[in-house]
Amino acid sequence: MTDLCFLDARELAGMLRRKEVSAREVVTAHLDQIGRVNPQVNAIVTLTAEQAFADAAAADDRLAAGERIGPLHGMPFAFKDTDDTVGVRTTYGSPLFADHVPERDELVVGRVKAAGAITLGKTNVPEFAAGSHTFNEVFGVTRNPYDLSRSAGGSSGGAAAALACGMVPLADGSDMGGSLRNPASFCNVVGFRPSPGRVPTWPNADPWSTMAVQGPLGRTVADAALLLSVQAGPDARSPIAIEQPGKAFAGPLEQDLCGLRVAWSPDLGGAVPVDQAVTDVLTPQVKVFEELGCRVELDCPDLTGAEEVFRTLRARLFDRGLGVHLDEHPNQVKASIAWNINEGRKLTVADLNRAHSLHAALFHRVREFFGQYDLLLLPVSQVVPFDATLEYPTRVAGQPQRSYLDWMRSAYLISATGCPALSVPAGLTPAGLPVGLQIVGPHHADLAVLRAGHAFQSALPSPTRPPICQE
Amino acid sequence: MTDLCFLDARELAGMLRRKEVSAREVVTAHLDQIGRVNPQVNAIVTLTAEQAFADAAAADDRLAAGERIGPLHGMPFAFKDTDDTVGVRTTYGSPLFADHVPERDELVVGRVKAAGAITLGKTNVPEFAAGSHTFNEVFGVTRNPYDLSRSAGGSSGGAAAALACGMVPLADGSDMGGSLRNPASFCNVVGFRPSPGRVPTWPNADPWSTMAVQGPLGRTVADAALLLSVQAGPDARSPIAIEQPGKAFAGPLEQDLCGLRVAWSPDLGGAVPVDQAVTDVLTPQVKVFEELGCRVELDCPDLTGAEEVFRTLRARLFDRGLGVHLDEHPNQVKASIAWNINEGRKLTVADLNRAHSLHAALFHRVREFFGQYDLLLLPVSQVVPFDATLEYPTRVAGQPQRSYLDWMRSAYLISATGCPALSVPAGLTPAGLPVGLQIVGPHHADLAVLRAGHAFQSALPSPTRPPICQE
Repeated sequence: MTDLCFLDARELAGMLRRKEVSAREVVTAHLDQIGRVNPQVNAIVTLTAEQAFADAAAADDRLAAGERIGPLHGMPFAFKDTDDTVGVRTTYGSPLFADHVPERDELVVGRVKAAGAITLGKTNVPEFAAGSHTFNEVFGVTRNPYDLSRSAGGSSGGAAAALACGMVPLADGSDMGGSLRNPASFCNVVGFRPSPGRVPTWPNADPWSTMAVQGPLGRTVADAALLLSVQAGPDARSPIAIEQPGKAFAGPLEQDLCGLRVAWSPDLGGAVPVDQAVTDVLTPQVKVFEELGCRVELDCPDLTGAEEVFRTLRARLFDRGLGVHLDEHPNQVKASIAWNINEGRKLTVADLNRAHSLHAALFHRVREFFGQYDLLLLPVSQVVPFDATLEYPTRVAGQPQRSYLDWMRSAYLISATGCPALSVPAGLTPAGLPVGLQIVGPHHADLAVLRAGHAFQSALPSPTRPPICQE
Repeated sequence: MTDLCFLDARELAGMLRRKEVSAREVVTAHLDQIGRVNPQVNAIVTLTAEQAFADAAAADDRLAAGERIGPLHGMPFAFKDTDDTVGVRTTYGSPLFADHVPERDELVVGRVKAAGAITLGKTNVPEFAAGSHTFNEVFGVTRNPYDLSRSAGGSSGGAAAALACGMVPLADGSDMGGSLRNPASFCNVVGFRPSPGRVPTWPNADPWSTMAVQGPLGRTVADAALLLSVQAGPDARSPIAIEQPGKAFAGPLEQDLCGLRVAWSPDLGGAVPVDQAVTDVLTPQVKVFEELGCRVELDCPDLTGAEEVFRTLRARLFDRGLGVHLDEHPNQVKASIAWNINEGRKLTVADLNRAHSLHAALFHRVREFFGQYDLLLLPVSQVVPFDATLEYPTRVAGQPQRSYLDWMRSAYLISATGCPALSVPAGLTPAGLPVGLQIVGPHHADLAVLRAGHAFQSALPSPTRPPICQE
């Protein structure tokens, strides 16, 4: 039954639809796998096994009765613990919400459920999803399935680790500064930061903001695209929602990449330090694009201002969204969040104006860069999975990192551009630690990025399962 | 030949396409009309007659040669003087730009030209399009064709007056606080404020802002929709551009309104004073919707916060966009603009945060209102066209107005909602002054608003031509 747990989601969904396996069997297999592996990694922090069995039985009955089923019929799913899920404890990783049970599903949760997915539980997150290492006072740390002493990344760390271990075939996440990408890179799975508005977010205190997005994770690019096909599409509750229906992502991703112009930058044009172990894995793999017929050149858009844009807009969002918690419960908000909120409180209108101007200039500069190139390749993370006892890696390629944000630049500078960005497994270091390749495309070119990622992944050997999941 | 000048744009475009009339003849007729009437109203402030004749000849030759022509083939057009037009003087109504000649067309200008329109010149605007009365130190005041002692409205005042007088069959405009709607109301023509992103704006210092939009004016709703079909549609240079192609607006607008739920608010739920003369014209005309089969009820969305949202976001945009001119040339910026910039300079981050929160709450409240209603009917303007020697009406329904903005609330509170809003002629006061009805629909429902406006306009007698254009 373990084999059911490592099937591609597209294959598993087909088997369920064709009644080759029942939702009961699939849910049982995944709950068994969670029982076996989760104690070691702590990826799934709230389990809804009883309801899942009931839902699976109901799903089987619906299929047997010939009722219409959704594209995720019978598929086990775990929602990020920052997603509001009706009736299921949702802590946001904060002790302040340790007993919080939402009264409604948020938009993206409703879509995944309506597509027929069966909720197994919630995946672990850093406190309020802040930072790319998943630990909090409510549930503790999520460990990397490839080395239990190391970080699974974050903030969608529980989701990535659960996927890597076959506990779920699909999981969702969100990404302001790399939260869908870093954990995918660290756990050898796929995470996709879509264009802002691709997955409408509601409720949303900042409905026009383009910094934080929601998106899919999977073990393959095609699986992530399947989930995106359910998550994406317009909704009147989001004023920035892209009108293209989600079903655009449901079809085959096969595409001939021959002739594509690809830029490759191992260090974002010198903007960031990168550990040699990361570069050593990525450099040979970039040649796969040449083998696929692409013209690969060393190049990177000018990311001037991206640092200030991200830091300013993030600090402002932290102040607006979390400042109230710091004021009311100063001892129950972690220091990094308090620092980030206070960064927001120091901002002046002049700072905001400058950030907006830099943001506009960056948008146009990157748009023009993609007049010359179809794709941009970068490291997802500047480091390999780091010691799980640290809050963040204190040095990258020998350079000291002063805050929990510094080391995430290869991800968050791309967030500031507004471009869709995919994290796809590129291989393991000699020590067996996963490294992800970041594939970035022009604004709104989500499908082109997924297709390129699919071609790249298809050209590589299947990713190695984590040691704890090998027979 | 004058009759050519008062044809519907759709009809004229068809005649040009079918070679029933040549572009030369059409351009000649309109230039003659400009020569006759423009000296009285001062709507067109830069005339490009020589180039227009050459363009018309070239257009006729292309059609004769069987080349592909655009939907505005041979149609005379005048661009708002805030639109950058390559090689044609563009003053923004400011003495600082009295001799400014842009080196490129802005996006919307390029689209209209590419559709085959022939530029006759530029239409007058208030200084930097600020305020709904069209006067400036470069060109003076634009007068209302229905009463030359009164205002044509603004900021697209030249456009509206030129249309009313048959000087052009179509013209464009922009709207932050009513600039497409007030002049349409004052001049008995149609102006449409589309959803933000419907017409992508580039260059744009604030590419994510949803306050200022560009859009069409015409003598009929169908004509405005024809122009919108050319202006609208995605462009990579605007991050908020709506993906739906512009051709969605090119088809017939006929629709059975039977069963639509319509809210009518003569005073925005008591939020604004309205002159009795306006209410007297609109009240009986609202019954047209009942005759068309709609269920009309007295109702209005709760617009709490809209005032603060608009004032705050506008002041910020003024500071960011025009502050530099005030600093460098304090005596060449009109007092109302200086005041508005200084309002922006007083803003704190807390003010901006509160405005953003109010904006989000307003968005959702209005969205929910449109769960109950298909359309909202309001006055466009709280006043009839006022004395052109005033900067703004100092009293509305007896209430004193303290700034150049106060009297524009019926338009700008709707801007803050993000909804598409149409100004359509509803008739004349006993003194012969035009009054417009404002038709508002849900976010992105531009087509539904245009269809309702078309049905309303089709049910009324044809608008009376201005006295100066009667035979």
